[in-house]
Amino acid sequence: MQKHNSEPALKVIFLGGVGEIGKNMTALEYGDDIIVIDCGVTFPNGDMPGVDLVIPDTTYLINNKDRVRGLVLTHGHEDHIGAVPYFIKDLNIPIYGTRLTLALLEPKFREHRVDNVKMNVVKPRSVITLGKNFRIEFVKVSHSIAGSCALAITTPVGVVFHTGDFKVDFTPIDGNVIDLQRIAELGTKGVLLLLAESTNVERPGSSMSEANVGNSLNSIFADNVDRRIFIATFASNIHRLQQIIDLAVKYKRKVAFSGRSMINIAECANKIGELNYPKDVVVDIEKIGKIDDRNLCIVTTGSQGEPMSALTRIASDENSKIKLGFNDTVILSASPIPGNERLVYNVINNLYRHGARVVYEKLAEVHVSGHAYQEELKLIHSLIKPKFFIPVHGEHRHLKKHAELAMRLGMSSENIIITDIGNKVEVTKREMRLGDNVPAGYVLVDGLGVGDIGSVVLRDRKHLAEDGLFVVVVGVNVLSGEITALEITSRGFAYTKENDPIFEQAKDVVRRALANVDLKEEGEWNGVRNIIRKELKSFLFRKTRRNPMILSMILEN
Amino acid sequence: MQKHNSEPALKVIFLGGVGEIGKNMTALEYGDDIIVIDCGVTFPNGDMPGVDLVIPDTTYLINNKDRVRGLVLTHGHEDHIGAVPYFIKDLNIPIYGTRLTLALLEPKFREHRVDNVKMNVVKPRSVITLGKNFRIEFVKVSHSIAGSCALAITTPVGVVFHTGDFKVDFTPIDGNVIDLQRIAELGTKGVLLLLAESTNVERPGSSMSEANVGNSLNSIFADNVDRRIFIATFASNIHRLQQIIDLAVKYKRKVAFSGRSMINIAECANKIGELNYPKDVVVDIEKIGKIDDRNLCIVTTGSQGEPMSALTRIASDENSKIKLGFNDTVILSASPIPGNERLVYNVINNLYRHGARVVYEKLAEVHVSGHAYQEELKLIHSLIKPKFFIPVHGEHRHLKKHAELAMRLGMSSENIIITDIGNKVEVTKREMRLGDNVPAGYVLVDGLGVGDIGSVVLRDRKHLAEDGLFVVVVGVNVLSGEITALEITSRGFAYTKENDPIFEQAKDVVRRALANVDLKEEGEWNGVRNIIRKELKSFLFRKTRRNPMILSMILEN
Repeated sequence: MQKHNSEPALKVIFLGGVGEIGKNMTALEYGDDIIVIDCGVTFPNGDMPGVDLVIPDTTYLINNKDRVRGLVLTHGHEDHIGAVPYFIKDLNIPIYGTRLTLALLEPKFREHRVDNVKMNVVKPRSVITLGKNFRIEFVKVSHSIAGSCALAITTPVGVVFHTGDFKVDFTPIDGNVIDLQRIAELGTKGVLLLLAESTNVERPGSSMSEANVGNSLNSIFADNVDRRIFIATFASNIHRLQQIIDLAVKYKRKVAFSGRSMINIAECANKIGELNYPKDVVVDIEKIGKIDDRNLCIVTTGSQGEPMSALTRIASDENSKIKLGFNDTVILSASPIPGNERLVYNVINNLYRHGARVVYEKLAEVHVSGHAYQEELKLIHSLIKPKFFIPVHGEHRHLKKHAELAMRLGMSSENIIITDIGNKVEVTKREMRLGDNVPAGYVLVDGLGVGDIGSVVLRDRKHLAEDGLFVVVVGVNVLSGEITALEITSRGFAYTKENDPIFEQAKDVVRRALANVDLKEEGEWNGVRNIIRKELKSFLFRKTRRNPMILSMILEN
Repeated sequence: MQKHNSEPALKVIFLGGVGEIGKNMTALEYGDDIIVIDCGVTFPNGDMPGVDLVIPDTTYLINNKDRVRGLVLTHGHEDHIGAVPYFIKDLNIPIYGTRLTLALLEPKFREHRVDNVKMNVVKPRSVITLGKNFRIEFVKVSHSIAGSCALAITTPVGVVFHTGDFKVDFTPIDGNVIDLQRIAELGTKGVLLLLAESTNVERPGSSMSEANVGNSLNSIFADNVDRRIFIATFASNIHRLQQIIDLAVKYKRKVAFSGRSMINIAECANKIGELNYPKDVVVDIEKIGKIDDRNLCIVTTGSQGEPMSALTRIASDENSKIKLGFNDTVILSASPIPGNERLVYNVINNLYRHGARVVYEKLAEVHVSGHAYQEELKLIHSLIKPKFFIPVHGEHRHLKKHAELAMRLGMSSENIIITDIGNKVEVTKREMRLGDNVPAGYVLVDGLGVGDIGSVVLRDRKHLAEDGLFVVVVGVNVLSGEITALEITSRGFAYTKENDPIFEQAKDVVRRALANVDLKEEGEWNGVRNIIRKELKSFLFRKTRRNPMILSMILEN
């Protein structure tokens, strides 16, 4: 056993961002103070039918309400800020973030009817103090959304450097390069613990600059002067939008935004000065009818093939205003996020079916990643030179690869911990170790319900989806013990005709099963229901090799 | 209108392999003769919950039974042969294919209890005659399964060259190079119509040789001499298996096959001499307990993360015999097929969690594609120099790109047709045009049911999966018009507790809705059921923002 009780430890608590869950949320705790970094959502996978959103379980923070001093946001992507309105309803702590990050929160608060949120705008190199134990400096980094910061957090045991999401872009669109000088300075003074993102740790070399996308788009604009141009991209990638608008100006095209989030974010970014253009360049999507193809560029959501998005609806001819044709060029300026491939390719196929030209990542450099590749990660490790390292923001395989990368740079494996959601890591000046776990996991949001969908409901939904449903209702006269009525219906099974012989056969099975059962014993129906279920299940499996869910209900009269 | 009735046309009928459906099936028709090329399955996507397989609609062939002369198979992959047992039950025509292709069919026929199938083994350069109008020559090509052939089909209007699935591998494992000389000779003599596969038309350059994988695996064996090695790959890739076995012999390891299809196919390929090894190299997977890690190589299914496969079960600790640990190296010698990414990465994450080393495509060249890249496609076009071209085996976007490639090589767009499933193309010596459509589409297989799952069932399954179910049963005394009983239950919705107040509230909604309805009119329950559904739907949406399926049933007594 190690001796480690002599010195109070800093606790780093992972409520998201490690393991297989995409949302990000980390807490730091020392003495009487807790601070929270990011509070994101993730989107449900195929195992969660009907679920709208997945948010972090914040029980630990709610239980320690009085000690939570503030929420610090690294940037405005959904997987870092999407759960804030849910969290802040329970715990109205001050929020700190750069201008765009906080501007993106505002419509969320309106939608959730959350008032009186204490929002504090910070700038790179701003320093804030939370509680007695945390001093947080915001450090400018490059990423696929403007206003992204890393955090240098001074604590009683030493400095924690949290990269947030980042890349190294030496030619960023807004001219503000990642603050490598400050990062180097922090490293020189000494960093105890590095938390660094791991998204692209599998990719060798360096990511391309956002400026490359501008060059590619420029060639496409030049090659398509007589055609209408559509560009689908992430609404939050303000620098991509800026490049597109600049090209539209250069090629004398108007820009129309399509899709709710595109319109909202562009408006919001324009208002705070992050997205700049002459007033008359942007036109309302409702008013594009009169504009010649050669003078129009439509910037749209749907780059991930999302079923309800603008581009998907245009591609499947569900948009009454915009009809695609042979004079259209559609650029998908994004990569499919793993899991979205089929959706994206379906949209591409549909675009081609309308005769449009389609340009996507496999064919031209119309997208670059916002996350650091191996050489960029190595640069940060080498500038920071931390004593301890915890890889974050990745699936288990990414964290593992990132740990290996750090070891190749000279770190000892004892100074690295790979964590999972719910882990609490204790750090002192001299050592780092895994402590007890805290409650953590995911909370499912479906409609108005937050957390009311649990594993039983999901299991039932999957069962219903795969095999459908058989409902048997038996009316019973509890005085005579007679069956007075018997109805069977099914959904999602196979037999959609009410007069299919299988229903009469199934009724016979039920009647036979109940022939020897005394139905006079009012109220004790569980046993009877089980008999019905069991007999029907085996009948249906024999007949169809399927196992529908069987609901049996008894009505007394 | 064109004049084209003077000359009888060859008809090329697409029952699969074009559009968004992965299965392959094409028919050629001339005069009194029809021949069928391939008969594959595809696997259901997320839009088809509970479906086991998707097979082609063969109505057109069944309706023309008397004229169908034979089924010609290009190779033994599931998307080319998987539906044969279903098809042959309806139409027992002679089947032609190379030895391995037919050997892979045999266990399928046993499983489906199909007897008396007329199977005819052919070899490359074999020529068969079907009916009066078709002479078919098998032409050796390279692909990721042994025994793959292209087809040169001589018809009264000219020669049709169908590539099947192919690549150009100058250093194949079995030493039999793609028969480019014969392909050139056919081209020189004149080919009327080329049907060429389009899978990798988006990839520039040439695919790598299968031999490259052997080199990569060799380095991994050399670097892991003291460790146990697992390799997951496609069971049907016999040449990959051969390379793995050869390396095992070289490094003095025994080979154990894991997973039903791996064991079956390896046995079958060994029996017919396509897979060769000394008897004592292969050991039963049940007997590996006594073998040292350094002397063992386990070759397993599950390279696509399939939930029930051997590797997936090992990774999630569900295999009682094989436990993973720090001394294991697992190689995934395959790429995720689009749509399988999440499943594959989940398996990789689980492998890492057990402490295993994991090698996959992003990290080393442990897989090569079996399909031609752009330069290989150009080679075939240039050797064949067809008059007409129809791109096949691809989604719409691939077909489109392949047409563009042919045009860059000098073909005129009028001589190319992009088809969709159900299309019939008419070809004469002088022209090619789209004719009428034939019935086509997909038939879903679920359990014992073939074709009984239709769009209504799928829609209901999706609805049930996303929002769950609410069942209301009302007992009615048709003499008095009184409600005698009222029961409500739900599944997959949210409220799993029977005593949740929502159920009592819902009952009140139903009672209020029926208060003004005359329930004495026996038998006319559809209107009543609709009232219940409508009121409950709006109550539940108001309360939860969800739309469960509502089943309302009335029991008379």
